[in-house]
Amino acid sequence: MVALAPPHSETDGCSIQATLAVISDRWTLLILRNVFRGVRRFGEMQADLDIARNILSDRLSKLVEHGVLEKVPYQDKPTRYEYHLTTKGADLSPALVALMGWGDRWYTDGQPPTVLVHEACGTPVIQRLECPACQAEVLPHQIRSQPGSEPISTTSEDPS
Amino acid sequence: MVALAPPHSETDGCSIQATLAVISDRWTLLILRNVFRGVRRFGEMQADLDIARNILSDRLSKLVEHGVLEKVPYQDKPTRYEYHLTTKGADLSPALVALMGWGDRWYTDGQPPTVLVHEACGTPVIQRLECPACQAEVLPHQIRSQPGSEPISTTSEDPS
Repeated sequence: MVALAPPHSETDGCSIQATLAVISDRWTLLILRNVFRGVRRFGEMQADLDIARNILSDRLSKLVEHGVLEKVPYQDKPTRYEYHLTTKGADLSPALVALMGWGDRWYTDGQPPTVLVHEACGTPVIQRLECPACQAEVLPHQIRSQPGSEPISTTSEDPS
Repeated sequence: MVALAPPHSETDGCSIQATLAVISDRWTLLILRNVFRGVRRFGEMQADLDIARNILSDRLSKLVEHGVLEKVPYQDKPTRYEYHLTTKGADLSPALVALMGWGDRWYTDGQPPTVLVHEACGTPVIQRLECPACQAEVLPHQIRSQPGSEPISTTSEDPS
């Protein structure tokens, strides 16, 4: 099983496969979680995750290669780098929020170790699916998946 | 690295780690994707995923052990089973939607192979974070994470 093979060789027309080809590795997701929290330097990550240097180095290289992280110098002589999320990397936020939410609901007895709050007011945020046409929340059993090649409903463009 | 160790031994106070301890394996997520799509029987999964029997069997056993799937008989003499999502398993829906959304946005050139639509009206659904107090969408950079032990804002209960 190749955890980080180039997505195009793994997708077979499925976006979850494409995503897994990039991030389906426990260390990779833990590294990303750290970068989202502001832990961006090799030494800090190594200490926080208790991960072998060669594994951390390998996973960081692959995340840079896949355009999820970018190396940004923060010191001269010798040059040292930290790892920042690219736009593509920052866009993994909903996936990490969803994975964290599931762990909170099923493994913390109602006392999650970390809570994500709206910075402006301190209220815990909620993640949900919505229908932009009906302006209503969509529950998991109200979703249907259809081939991308099929025509999309025009309800939202043509409410008449 | 133990992909499917019992969450309590892996969490270290982090819900993403708890989740990864259960589902951070590419095959596991592909099996779950299939079950969400209605592919519930061993032979169908094997054919669809082109996965070795022993790997499929191992991953299904672990998903049952973790309470994500349950075995339901669908035939007598000999008894045969199919795998259904439990409530806990169905609750992974937001995580799979998020992983699929990221793959759609970054690996499909705007032509996703599968689209998730609102069953009632056929409009593609959108996943977003909201603040229940402000009744507004929350963008990734507007989130703050805080220890679960800290008091939560009471803005939503006390709007005065």
